[in-house]
Amino acid sequence: MNDLERVLMQLRRFTAEREWGRFHDPKNLAMLLASEAGELVALLRWIPNGEADAFVRSAGNRPGVEAEAADVAIALLLFCDRAGIDLASAVEAKIAANASKYPVELSRGHARTPVR
Amino acid sequence: MNDLERVLMQLRRFTAEREWGRFHDPKNLAMLLASEAGELVALLRWIPNGEADAFVRSAGNRPGVEAEAADVAIALLLFCDRAGIDLASAVEAKIAANASKYPVELSRGHARTPVR
Amino acid sequence: MNDLERVLMQLRRFTAEREWGRFHDPKNLAMLLASEAGELVALLRWIPNGEADAFVRSAGNRPGVEAEAADVAIALLLFCDRAGIDLASAVEAKIAANASKYPVELSRGHARTPVR
Amino acid sequence: MNDLERVLMQLRRFTAEREWGRFHDPKNLAMLLASEAGELVALLRWIPNGEADAFVRSAGNRPGVEAEAADVAIALLLFCDRAGIDLASAVEAKIAANASKYPVELSRGHARTPVR
Repeated sequence: MNDLERVLMQLRRFTAEREWGRFHDPKNLAMLLASEAGELVALLRWIPNGEADAFVRSAGNRPGVEAEAADVAIALLLFCDRAGIDLASAVEAKIAANASKYPVELSRGHARTPVR
Repeated sequence: MNDLERVLMQLRRFTAEREWGRFHDPKNLAMLLASEAGELVALLRWIPNGEADAFVRSAGNRPGVEAEAADVAIALLLFCDRAGIDLASAVEAKIAANASKYPVELSRGHARTPVR
Repeated sequence: MNDLERVLMQLRRFTAEREWGRFHDPKNLAMLLASEAGELVALLRWIPNGEADAFVRSAGNRPGVEAEAADVAIALLLFCDRAGIDLASAVEAKIAANASKYPVELSRGHARTPVR
Repeated sequence: MNDLERVLMQLRRFTAEREWGRFHDPKNLAMLLASEAGELVALLRWIPNGEADAFVRSAGNRPGVEAEAADVAIALLLFCDRAGIDLASAVEAKIAANASKYPVELSRGHARTPVR
């Protein structure tokens, strides 16, 4: 069993034991995701770009950053599980779509969407 | 190789080919995450709770929901990869922390944080 | 002097006294805004649509809701002030643009964007 | 009549004409706010701190930045109007609370919350 499957089983059990499925419709879980993403953003809002790598890797900040990233992941996994989305497949399909939207030769070194 | 590792390798190659690592510091990637979470929220903002399950599972809405969920996942994976965070471990640690914060007997059937 | 001008003067003085202008570039303030919006979303994430009006108006929840709405407003006002945007004019222009994007006769009673 | 009152009257008329009040409960409007905040964040996600001021003030980017800031303001005003919140008063109260939470002498020149 791989990582994703193991974590999904833990989340399903956690939710079922607390009878929280009633709260976990896709709308509510999308809101959970947005609020957790906001908490991760909050950690970095006053950190300049040039210090962001050191910030997230420092021993003092690391546990908080990991916890917020995990909260976002949990919200997303709960959402996908409820919606019946196979997240690994969805991600691979999106990477392929992005590769075709942003061809290497038109996208190298800048962040603008190519116009063809 | 499991799902997460395979996807990470695809993302690293995608980013390297386009020389986008310069844009992908943790601050910028946290912003990417928040904007992608906002797009998922946008899909469900006018859908009532009671219709949200049917909405995300309908054939017409499904591709869009999957694509937005995948975009959130990609942003989170890029963030964790840049920050050196092992996301699967971080998620398992957070589920364990949540289990201790929300004991089954004090949390069953309601969404309030237990006060002890 | 109207409400908006009075509040802007208070915010400028608050920021100047603490020498926080150095942190308040538009990028950082956009992150502040997203994190504050996430906190407002967090208050309502488990509340069903049909209970949301009563929730925000109940005496127990009201102070928290007001405080989060105010935080969002402060972030937005700081952003616009830094960017040199006259928010009242920008809002009036956007309402006019929306009125033309969503004509009454094509938009009444549903939340879809009209296709013409 | 001041700016805020004038804009609120325009928003109420816009919403009433389209019979959109049914969609505008506080939960849905909090989601609207988060999604609009996400769009503003998207504009700045690849812009370094040091270029953010010039970015938002450049003629090419200005209209988009103004439109996104206006969308956030509209979402917040709709939310406060629905919830019966007097936003100007709430903001003034919050600035006063922040002034007491962040005393000038303990807060000057850094972004950490004072511990007393």
